[in-house]
Amino acid sequence: MSLQPVDLLLTGKYVLPMDPAQTLIENGAVAVNGNRIVAVGPAGDILSRYRGAETIFEEHGLIMPGLINVHTHAAMACFRGLADDLPLMQWLQEYIFPVEARLTPEIIYHSTLLSLCEMIKSGTTSFCDMYLFAADVARAVATSGMRAWLGEVLYDFPSPSYGEPENGFACTERLFQRYADHPLISITVDPHAVYTCSPDLLQRLGRMAAEKNALYVIHLAENQEEVNTCLERYGCSPVMHLEQLGLLNERVVADHCVMVSDEEIALLARRGVKVAHCQESNMKLASGTAPVVKMLRAGITVGIGTDGSASNNDVDMFGEMNTVAKIHKVARMDPTAMDAATTVRAATSGGAAVLGAGHEIGSLEVGKKADLIVLDMNQPHLTPVYNPVSHLVYAARGADVIHSVIDGRVIMRQRRLTTLDEAAILAEMNRIGGEIRGLRAQ
Amino acid sequence: MSLQPVDLLLTGKYVLPMDPAQTLIENGAVAVNGNRIVAVGPAGDILSRYRGAETIFEEHGLIMPGLINVHTHAAMACFRGLADDLPLMQWLQEYIFPVEARLTPEIIYHSTLLSLCEMIKSGTTSFCDMYLFAADVARAVATSGMRAWLGEVLYDFPSPSYGEPENGFACTERLFQRYADHPLISITVDPHAVYTCSPDLLQRLGRMAAEKNALYVIHLAENQEEVNTCLERYGCSPVMHLEQLGLLNERVVADHCVMVSDEEIALLARRGVKVAHCQESNMKLASGTAPVVKMLRAGITVGIGTDGSASNNDVDMFGEMNTVAKIHKVARMDPTAMDAATTVRAATSGGAAVLGAGHEIGSLEVGKKADLIVLDMNQPHLTPVYNPVSHLVYAARGADVIHSVIDGRVIMRQRRLTTLDEAAILAEMNRIGGEIRGLRAQ
Repeated sequence: MSLQPVDLLLTGKYVLPMDPAQTLIENGAVAVNGNRIVAVGPAGDILSRYRGAETIFEEHGLIMPGLINVHTHAAMACFRGLADDLPLMQWLQEYIFPVEARLTPEIIYHSTLLSLCEMIKSGTTSFCDMYLFAADVARAVATSGMRAWLGEVLYDFPSPSYGEPENGFACTERLFQRYADHPLISITVDPHAVYTCSPDLLQRLGRMAAEKNALYVIHLAENQEEVNTCLERYGCSPVMHLEQLGLLNERVVADHCVMVSDEEIALLARRGVKVAHCQESNMKLASGTAPVVKMLRAGITVGIGTDGSASNNDVDMFGEMNTVAKIHKVARMDPTAMDAATTVRAATSGGAAVLGAGHEIGSLEVGKKADLIVLDMNQPHLTPVYNPVSHLVYAARGADVIHSVIDGRVIMRQRRLTTLDEAAILAEMNRIGGEIRGLRAQ
Repeated sequence: MSLQPVDLLLTGKYVLPMDPAQTLIENGAVAVNGNRIVAVGPAGDILSRYRGAETIFEEHGLIMPGLINVHTHAAMACFRGLADDLPLMQWLQEYIFPVEARLTPEIIYHSTLLSLCEMIKSGTTSFCDMYLFAADVARAVATSGMRAWLGEVLYDFPSPSYGEPENGFACTERLFQRYADHPLISITVDPHAVYTCSPDLLQRLGRMAAEKNALYVIHLAENQEEVNTCLERYGCSPVMHLEQLGLLNERVVADHCVMVSDEEIALLARRGVKVAHCQESNMKLASGTAPVVKMLRAGITVGIGTDGSASNNDVDMFGEMNTVAKIHKVARMDPTAMDAATTVRAATSGGAAVLGAGHEIGSLEVGKKADLIVLDMNQPHLTPVYNPVSHLVYAARGADVIHSVIDGRVIMRQRRLTTLDEAAILAEMNRIGGEIRGLRAQ
């Protein structure tokens, strides 16, 4: 019997498809043709049916869906470690805002490239980004071959990117036109938050998201200060403010949701709002701990995000999973809370569902897009293996990811990036780092 | 002028000595002769004075003291991921105890070797270990060239290691004799905890520690259950129980100290007790969060420990620092708590002081033992660099450590271990993992 040719064939000691049946295949394989998965199963079976034009065979490899980072500000990589351990307002007003005001499209482009290198090298294949100069973020993403949902952040005051607030709509409209048919980039509508956007702005953007059938991405109930401001200004909490404006629906990706009551959790679940859980940022900025266990019980779709590298300070989703699985145990004083499988689901299929792409990515199933990563399990900190899922959450690190495939294309092989010139990007960002240090000193 | 020959010369983009002056040297160097540091300073200066028989020159390197893990059970690496996300008693009684009862000296020896590989590869140069079959732990440590404080754990019931409780004293005595003059291994006296050791056992071991001038290492106030048991049995808290037995003194290394009141913190400080802070384990087992900020303010010497790989599930001190710096911010709702410098100090000079070795290790200063590591800073997640200390805590991972020197000897070069056969250890541990899975199934 002749073998069916496919573009890419992968084998590994483990294949963890993250499918609803929670399958674990020992000595497994995945066959990819074009940008789609055509077969997942035991290696013996797959190898007897398919021949790969390109192959990735890893004796000690674990093959799994690429991780999905549902909340980032990729370009903030240029601020990594610029200022830490400070009160939020001092951090923003003395460090971040003055430098953000002088950002340029080129800084954004290169900073995004840096973050993309980091994301790929730590196992992320898709992410959802909100920031300034989104056209330049998109330009960098298109170069990399990563999959992204991204948008230009809008608020009531002038933006370093598009100037007067009114220009923000045209800016977003241009993004929609430019990337209407892009296979990997989807444009989102991004009101910054309820304390920086008037009810009118929030609603205009709500209508835009509905018209475009796009995600409506917003920071929501991140900390007590936001709640207090909203109470003062509108007499209600951030969640109830959006509810009263008629803006809670299944297109909303609510970032953080640290300060939400049981009633609000029930409401978010009823409205089909998705939540991006960003625990490391919430810890570092002392915002609190989102009641994610309750959210999941209420049926809310929850994904995991790293937030920007200015407040984390990395975009390593393995580190984030490690923290997420542990923080809820101690927050609830229950060692069974947020178990390993639940955590990996949130970082894969959960993230896909948050982005409305659960039918396309987030698991290794026949017909889905081929977004997958391979980890090298033959390492001291991953030995022995009783339960691969436990290792992914409690022991693995981003650096354990050795291959990455996005949309059927090998984006990293043996930790070498194939689409980005890592050495050049690091050199350029070191130069830009010096520039930013100079801006601060002025 | 002729150059003075030394055994080892290192240069890097940054040298972070972690000295009391909080020096940071850009383009720095360290000269080592025998097992001691003979010079630390600007590379230009050092290179004009010394010639190294062996050299480590890293253009993008950061040279710093090796990390000190003040609480481990290294051999528990064989249980990594065997059981997670379970209530503590179910975890212990259904998984850990049944398998521990059937441990052998050879399993312990190889499991310890595995943990040593992992520790070296993630930047740890010294650790403090408490476990069963300590003679075999010591045998593995001696092979590796790592620096360790270690002891045989004692309690009121028979041990898989030495049998009847009474034999534990002779077992410990033999360790003291065997390693009396070892340059890298120090023996400790290790009562397990107040709920597993009678007052008589605790006191006999207290006398032994005093006679030997050894550390007295004990799990203390780890969780509410321990407190409840102690209250029931002795009418007081674990800390007060040790106080009433006259056992709190400057030789005591108290592991965990999660459940301590303000008064007890003041008492621990007065008595000179040292604390091993093991936050990731405390989170994973839902024990709580030790009030470390208060302890440091009270003047207690605090080090950082990973605990065993059964409850963490790794021994990566970089991951632990990341968690420690963030958890206290959210626990206290204060983003300035446990800043990066304080955290790195706890993992280096603090750890050294916990082990009574602050005069010998924990910082790079002339005359001190040469225990140091080199990180590769030329990586996406560590770019750009505004503040190297911030990166060590908020962005670096164990895998960023590329060289390790212990007692003047290069133990890892370019991530290759020089004293241990990593491939053989991984293969053997995979075999042992299969055995342990079999034990569980019986």
